[in-house]
Amino acid sequence: MTDDRLPTAIVGAGGYIGQHFARLLADHPWFAPPLLVSGERSEGRTLSEVWQLADPPPDELAGARLVKLGPGEVARRGVRLVFSALPSGVAGGVESELARRGIAVFSNAADHRRDPDVALLVPEVNASRLAAIGRRRGRGLLVTNPNCSAAGLAVALAPIVPVLRPRAVHVSTYQALSGAGFPGVPSLTIADNVVPFIRDEEEKVGAETALLLGGIRGRAVRPWPVPVVAHCARVATRDGNLEAVTVEARRRPPRAAILSAWREFDPLAARGLPTAPSPPVVLRSEPDRPQPLRDRWAGAPARARGMAVSVGRVRWTPPFLRFFLLAHNAVRGGAGGSVLNAELAVHEGRLARDGR
Amino acid sequence: MTDDRLPTAIVGAGGYIGQHFARLLADHPWFAPPLLVSGERSEGRTLSEVWQLADPPPDELAGARLVKLGPGEVARRGVRLVFSALPSGVAGGVESELARRGIAVFSNAADHRRDPDVALLVPEVNASRLAAIGRRRGRGLLVTNPNCSAAGLAVALAPIVPVLRPRAVHVSTYQALSGAGFPGVPSLTIADNVVPFIRDEEEKVGAETALLLGGIRGRAVRPWPVPVVAHCARVATRDGNLEAVTVEARRRPPRAAILSAWREFDPLAARGLPTAPSPPVVLRSEPDRPQPLRDRWAGAPARARGMAVSVGRVRWTPPFLRFFLLAHNAVRGGAGGSVLNAELAVHEGRLARDGR
Amino acid sequence: MTDDRLPTAIVGAGGYIGQHFARLLADHPWFAPPLLVSGERSEGRTLSEVWQLADPPPDELAGARLVKLGPGEVARRGVRLVFSALPSGVAGGVESELARRGIAVFSNAADHRRDPDVALLVPEVNASRLAAIGRRRGRGLLVTNPNCSAAGLAVALAPIVPVLRPRAVHVSTYQALSGAGFPGVPSLTIADNVVPFIRDEEEKVGAETALLLGGIRGRAVRPWPVPVVAHCARVATRDGNLEAVTVEARRRPPRAAILSAWREFDPLAARGLPTAPSPPVVLRSEPDRPQPLRDRWAGAPARARGMAVSVGRVRWTPPFLRFFLLAHNAVRGGAGGSVLNAELAVHEGRLARDGR
Amino acid sequence: MTDDRLPTAIVGAGGYIGQHFARLLADHPWFAPPLLVSGERSEGRTLSEVWQLADPPPDELAGARLVKLGPGEVARRGVRLVFSALPSGVAGGVESELARRGIAVFSNAADHRRDPDVALLVPEVNASRLAAIGRRRGRGLLVTNPNCSAAGLAVALAPIVPVLRPRAVHVSTYQALSGAGFPGVPSLTIADNVVPFIRDEEEKVGAETALLLGGIRGRAVRPWPVPVVAHCARVATRDGNLEAVTVEARRRPPRAAILSAWREFDPLAARGLPTAPSPPVVLRSEPDRPQPLRDRWAGAPARARGMAVSVGRVRWTPPFLRFFLLAHNAVRGGAGGSVLNAELAVHEGRLARDGR
Repeated sequence: MTDDRLPTAIVGAGGYIGQHFARLLADHPWFAPPLLVSGERSEGRTLSEVWQLADPPPDELAGARLVKLGPGEVARRGVRLVFSALPSGVAGGVESELARRGIAVFSNAADHRRDPDVALLVPEVNASRLAAIGRRRGRGLLVTNPNCSAAGLAVALAPIVPVLRPRAVHVSTYQALSGAGFPGVPSLTIADNVVPFIRDEEEKVGAETALLLGGIRGRAVRPWPVPVVAHCARVATRDGNLEAVTVEARRRPPRAAILSAWREFDPLAARGLPTAPSPPVVLRSEPDRPQPLRDRWAGAPARARGMAVSVGRVRWTPPFLRFFLLAHNAVRGGAGGSVLNAELAVHEGRLARDGR
Repeated sequence: MTDDRLPTAIVGAGGYIGQHFARLLADHPWFAPPLLVSGERSEGRTLSEVWQLADPPPDELAGARLVKLGPGEVARRGVRLVFSALPSGVAGGVESELARRGIAVFSNAADHRRDPDVALLVPEVNASRLAAIGRRRGRGLLVTNPNCSAAGLAVALAPIVPVLRPRAVHVSTYQALSGAGFPGVPSLTIADNVVPFIRDEEEKVGAETALLLGGIRGRAVRPWPVPVVAHCARVATRDGNLEAVTVEARRRPPRAAILSAWREFDPLAARGLPTAPSPPVVLRSEPDRPQPLRDRWAGAPARARGMAVSVGRVRWTPPFLRFFLLAHNAVRGGAGGSVLNAELAVHEGRLARDGR
Repeated sequence: MTDDRLPTAIVGAGGYIGQHFARLLADHPWFAPPLLVSGERSEGRTLSEVWQLADPPPDELAGARLVKLGPGEVARRGVRLVFSALPSGVAGGVESELARRGIAVFSNAADHRRDPDVALLVPEVNASRLAAIGRRRGRGLLVTNPNCSAAGLAVALAPIVPVLRPRAVHVSTYQALSGAGFPGVPSLTIADNVVPFIRDEEEKVGAETALLLGGIRGRAVRPWPVPVVAHCARVATRDGNLEAVTVEARRRPPRAAILSAWREFDPLAARGLPTAPSPPVVLRSEPDRPQPLRDRWAGAPARARGMAVSVGRVRWTPPFLRFFLLAHNAVRGGAGGSVLNAELAVHEGRLARDGR
Repeated sequence: MTDDRLPTAIVGAGGYIGQHFARLLADHPWFAPPLLVSGERSEGRTLSEVWQLADPPPDELAGARLVKLGPGEVARRGVRLVFSALPSGVAGGVESELARRGIAVFSNAADHRRDPDVALLVPEVNASRLAAIGRRRGRGLLVTNPNCSAAGLAVALAPIVPVLRPRAVHVSTYQALSGAGFPGVPSLTIADNVVPFIRDEEEKVGAETALLLGGIRGRAVRPWPVPVVAHCARVATRDGNLEAVTVEARRRPPRAAILSAWREFDPLAARGLPTAPSPPVVLRSEPDRPQPLRDRWAGAPARARGMAVSVGRVRWTPPFLRFFLLAHNAVRGGAGGSVLNAELAVHEGRLARDGR
């Protein structure tokens, strides 16, 4: 019996996001068990031995050993898709090299997010970007998911932008520890504390949200022209970015129209992507939700756990619409985002000739 | 040797804010050791026995016993000033009754904050309010400090309002556990979590900031007409409210002018109030300050610890000025605010004839 | 199609342990969906509306409404098994009354744990107790699970007692917040803190461990005569009691014999109880395990998640055997313990004539 | 006016313990402001710029710059006492070299703690050790404070050992984050968790407690022959090690005799050492003390804050005496211990000829 699933690899498999990729790719219906590529430090160890997430590693991959391979070796092993969990700064060169060798690269790193021939993609928000911009780089493909806070924000804004025609968006984040990976934030820095600074984060939230919500003119993205004014802070939660959002609106629709826009939003419903949450926005009516502890794993079906964006505490005092949103930073805003991107690319036939 | 300090009492002395009052009034140069008035639950116990703050009770009051007394009994004991730490809802009637008996009441409760004959007061922000509005209610006086988040916000905004002429103020809070008093927030509610809801808080921040920054026409306060759009959330810090503030400005002064406005702000400098911090705004230049853990006790001299408002991460991208502020919710935003109010009232000769 | 599963109810269904019962009984192969009995405060609300656990309520019961019913009404509805999550103090009378009416009661409360006609039961440790002592009280049955810290300790000790013949057992606990239920421990009490006191806990750990490991003479339990010397402290973890255990041994077997005793321990293997973990003791060889965060949900198969006791850091320096253990306080040490007890009782035919 | 205080230096001044040394040496009556010696990373920066403790740096030293100096340069600058906050492993060679040059070295590092010509010293416990063993190494002196958990344990045991004649001591620790310094424990490792492992810690607690409580035969220490059986775990508190202690006693004195032994213990009372707490053991009678949050700073007078060991929850069920103790790991169990050692050495005239 042969496995007709697509051969994949994770580069940076030993880190926090890499392990989320492993978790999400285990028993995936379209993708074969990934080759786990890592640096020298983890070489030869099993996934189990380097595992850092709170829940145990997936059975399918627990005993798999991490290997140290260059881009050429990865390509020679027949890998068709690579998920990149490499740290920004390191990722850029490796990803370009992989793409040059005909591989489709789906990256969580920031290095290529603003490149003109790379799609910064959130399938519910700008699926058409893949066709317009995500052309092959060399023979392959390079697609990135956005910053963890921009991902949730873009999904929550997408349905209401046409209804409200925003003049400005204000956002303040309450970001989780896992966003800094491992070892990440020292416990003495954050215990009984909030740190109102995450390097480059506010710029990314502003610029990447604008890219995601922007349009295409020719083959170039025209960023959304509305200011996205961000404050980013780290709080002592393990996972899940909470964001306080105020939209200053040009239009004054009834409240029900805004809620309907969120409720009816499900642009991927017909495509059958395994990791797509349906609905992508979970609207909560309790007075004190969403919360990181209780809503971080929102998302159905089971394979889409952590992929839904929860929206709640909606207050509409025109011209200001206020709400909180919650998205799992390492799933919706990280590894899960890239897995969904890969599923969309496969579904759209964007892999090379012999692809699915 | 007689103690010529003014006789005082704390009502609600057994609670969290009551204990902060006790801490602040111990060894006070103007105020005699307070009578500790409380409800039945704490009656007859020493302050030491009911103490809940992390630091130990002040030596001067540790052995003092809590007594259960009605307003009449408090008045008959010759008390001239009462500090009220009663919970909102309960406080209103007791405070009115005390004022009717000629006592000057300085309250942390919300009940009377919007009454037309009560001064909602932050001495650095609206000291003239005391003369204009804080007239005697009955024979006494009733003065309130604002909500804990409004207090810090008003102090931080006061110096820059004339420089920027704001069109709108956006604020998101990261509020401490102690703001909910004791028992307050259950640990299972907040461990590994953020709760994006505090009852009535957003309304208070909006309305009270507008009252504090407003003007007087006749004897009525004309609220500041600029929208203060708030999101309030509880995080797992013990003390100190962090606030992310964006001011949308009408004017575009150079950055240095904004910083100078904060640096030169010290309207109480000449008055010699013991609990007044000098400067009231501590401007921080580090990339990651202010922080609750490190800045909650800002304020000099020693008696003004926790009274300064720390401002940092100032970003000026016109028309948007962004910054974070940090103020100790139970000191600047609670008991300390009322002690400073009382000092101002004494200094201004606002107590009755036989007062200091 | 009829449901031939046994009709059940949960009393105290609105509380923390009650909700764990609901979670564990959802889709149970032997037990029908439980009637949710609660007090006035929750009457008429759905399980979803009162839900307090971090993970969402089970689909099967989310919409079920809590009802206020007395013991007679519960009996008249044909309920055969009741799971009691009532608080100690309240539980005693209700449970007796239910048992008198022919119902088999499985309780998490402390009230009846030391009664002579009640089985204090941990199936892996003293399954025979059910036959010996758990005789019907009135027409029914009353079986209790032990204190949350005693449960894990007894499971970890059971396999090694014959190998080591202990002279004394020393145990210090690091207990989770959820053991105090809801609202439970105030956040201001435990943030940045450890509280070295849990009322009556040390006595329970000592006395109940002795009852569990004791023998039967006639129909009376003869407590284990070895001193169990306990320190109990609360730490700021959500779930999972960690315990530091030192056994002073009379015998000096090789280390391998001790490890084998744990590894080979699986006394329920043949019985097919749905909630029984196999193996009941998970032996960990990492240098820093077990940990509450990572091991609280140990236990296979899926229905037994949270039922295994993790043992690690085994150090054998005769006569002292040191190890740490970790057990989920609300599952193995609470609701899950009673569900397993009920499964054993059904399997042993201990329910009344018309029972399964 | 000349400063006749002794010239001092701190090596490793940039780290967590180094900063505690700076805090404790500011405005010290016997010791001049220390030279701040550090590695390359901090060279040239002010103490303020590298400061990591929650409270602000002492005014006297805030602007002082860290310098990179070898042992010879330190000696040439006339330094008479060096406080070593170097990490274990690095410390050994530097400290030996400093001592060879005639300097009295007071170290927090583990490297020399078991050397035969080095005094492992806690003044309240084994002050005579200084004379017996702490002879000059080369021309200087080398004295160490013990491991942070051994320090508190030794102080708590010293008064009761003669009363109880222990057969064994069992101790389980709840250790603070700051014991691992900075960056130390990653927040993702410890949030919602306890880690039951600290490298080499249990061995140190056992061996160093035995050295501290041991006697002298000739010039060699004869370790206390009673087993000290330790479990060490890290919890998510910022400062203060809590320890659960069970003493198995040979004698059975009345409870009052045990309490008196602690209450009357004050062996340094007559010496006037500035950093000595009086009393060294604070006996607490509340049901739930000591606690890290509330007792970490125990110790009078002001200069001895954090130097007292709090003891509480005393339960005497012969032969087992159980209690909890709390000691500030970075003060009593770190920098403060060495400052007190230095004060004792100066008081005893143990510095070289031209010393005080």
